[in-house]
Amino acid sequence: MTSPKAREEAVLEAVRKRRDRVNAAIPEDLPIQPPTRLYEASRYLLDAGGKRLRPTVLLTTAEALADVQPLSVDYRGFPTLSGAEPGSVSKIDMMNAAVSVEVIQSFTLIHDDIMDDDDLRRGVPAVHKEYDLETAILAGDTLYSKAFEIMLDTGAKPDRTVDALEVLATTCTKICEGQSHDVSFEERDDVSTEDYLEMVEQKTAVLYAASACLPAILMEADAETIDALYGYGLDIGRAFQIQDDVLDLTVPSEELGKQRGSDLVENKQTLITVHARDQGVDVDSLIDTNDVDAVTEAEIDDAVATLEETGSISYANEMARELVEDGKARLEILPDNEARELLFELADYLIERGY
Amino acid sequence: MTSPKAREEAVLEAVRKRRDRVNAAIPEDLPIQPPTRLYEASRYLLDAGGKRLRPTVLLTTAEALADVQPLSVDYRGFPTLSGAEPGSVSKIDMMNAAVSVEVIQSFTLIHDDIMDDDDLRRGVPAVHKEYDLETAILAGDTLYSKAFEIMLDTGAKPDRTVDALEVLATTCTKICEGQSHDVSFEERDDVSTEDYLEMVEQKTAVLYAASACLPAILMEADAETIDALYGYGLDIGRAFQIQDDVLDLTVPSEELGKQRGSDLVENKQTLITVHARDQGVDVDSLIDTNDVDAVTEAEIDDAVATLEETGSISYANEMARELVEDGKARLEILPDNEARELLFELADYLIERGY
Repeated sequence: MTSPKAREEAVLEAVRKRRDRVNAAIPEDLPIQPPTRLYEASRYLLDAGGKRLRPTVLLTTAEALADVQPLSVDYRGFPTLSGAEPGSVSKIDMMNAAVSVEVIQSFTLIHDDIMDDDDLRRGVPAVHKEYDLETAILAGDTLYSKAFEIMLDTGAKPDRTVDALEVLATTCTKICEGQSHDVSFEERDDVSTEDYLEMVEQKTAVLYAASACLPAILMEADAETIDALYGYGLDIGRAFQIQDDVLDLTVPSEELGKQRGSDLVENKQTLITVHARDQGVDVDSLIDTNDVDAVTEAEIDDAVATLEETGSISYANEMARELVEDGKARLEILPDNEARELLFELADYLIERGY
Repeated sequence: MTSPKAREEAVLEAVRKRRDRVNAAIPEDLPIQPPTRLYEASRYLLDAGGKRLRPTVLLTTAEALADVQPLSVDYRGFPTLSGAEPGSVSKIDMMNAAVSVEVIQSFTLIHDDIMDDDDLRRGVPAVHKEYDLETAILAGDTLYSKAFEIMLDTGAKPDRTVDALEVLATTCTKICEGQSHDVSFEERDDVSTEDYLEMVEQKTAVLYAASACLPAILMEADAETIDALYGYGLDIGRAFQIQDDVLDLTVPSEELGKQRGSDLVENKQTLITVHARDQGVDVDSLIDTNDVDAVTEAEIDDAVATLEETGSISYANEMARELVEDGKARLEILPDNEARELLFELADYLIERGY
């Protein structure tokens, strides 16, 4: 049996290889053109880094469905499942679908950073800090429509393109609804586990769900496969967000690229705080300040110690693990191949990653 | 011959009748649902009023194409041009297309008001003033994806739905590009007439162009008709914006629903200021303050008098008139019917309206 460390390294290597291809595709699909400042601002966060996890899920799902060796087929000329039938579309641009999803992700980060007034993202200034508020709003809006333009241009059958756009549009709507819940939760102290999980599904998981099912839609898979993959994405996406909430407390600020414990400072509701409150912890008093610049490492250490004592952090870890196992079980519908194996490992990685 | 006054009243009556139907459709297509505050904020500006000029152009173009009596056919079960052919789509929901365009317009207004930090819109507080910055950004983002969802649901043939979405997405991109130019123009004093017209085309006219050509796309008209209608919309949209710039100077604040002359105060470039600068006027010195709350009516009166002396306002009026005539000429491609007549009159109305 491979060691956990070696396994994680293998997954990261697989992620990196797809990331490099996605990074090469972004300037092709979203070139910097006049008005230059607008497109530079739109590309700023995309170019600042990111693991491209959602595009990796999308591209790997496509490979599993097509039953091809990972990285053996050009993503820009990817086979469909009906390619051999007369009059059908044989090749589509799967990379466009991957870039589109990443562009949506980037748009939401730019606008979220304005809403949360966060200064840093991926270790660089947020777009509204590097540029200004106006440019950041407009850069997000530009990415929004560009994501639709790029997804419209995969060359898939028109009825499948319509379905793909439907998924993309409803996904964006749900992300907005989730963000709205997330903001309103900051004012509330009666958020239940169900409330939290619904918010996380909308805010984060739907984009993973879209990433996993879009290849099936575009490649003309059946409804059962599309549904199963959507479910896989939803499960691992929720697990990803829960792990993100854990990492916000446990990873040093330098590695996070932002202040550790910022969720606590800003009164964000997470599965951890919801659990701790159920255990009788006065969560609002864990950190005195509401200003991330004023909090000390010692205060955060104390708060984390309390959340460990109540078992809230391990509760979150367990829930994330269960979700990942549920998600993996849904992949039974795919052919048994190397790409599917990678989708299992990606699911594990989302909750085992250190940052 | 009918008097100009009676003619304007007839156009307004036609606009009002369509506006009432659009207003009845908006809550159907965009119901207020949880998270309630988000949807209330999204609907706030839509419910505050508006003439629904773009939906009116869209619905009337559909009637002209279908060669039906105005207002005689249910917009939610509208005939296509290929309806009689076996296997084709016979009825589509044209109202959805109209609402989608209005929803895009509303999204851009919400975000523009944040960018320009305008307090008032349609006589009520801007969304970021009535709610807050976060909610306003998110309300705009929600309308954005909802517009795509609504346009995806007309029931048109998939290939035509793809074409419609393509128009919608590229239109949104151009609106962002236009807004970016508009903002950057405020810092410049070398904006040419061509620069201005390109900015106006992107910022304003493309949504009129989309409104005019979308019925042709959805109803399966030929490419020549689609192109001609796009051109009509582009021409009247540019004329509309030029007239808007004139009205900003000439209509009392109470009727405008915002401070008269605010474009001058905020150093917005308009065809009028570009022309005046070419005549040697120091446009930046026309109004001393950059604060709309500090400007006096007398200052604005003096500035307007100067712009009248240089012929800049009549220059703008003439350019708008020429564009409207160009646009009307493109409608030759439509059947000669009452709805086409109304499209002529709508074009005239856009530059003859008092506010």
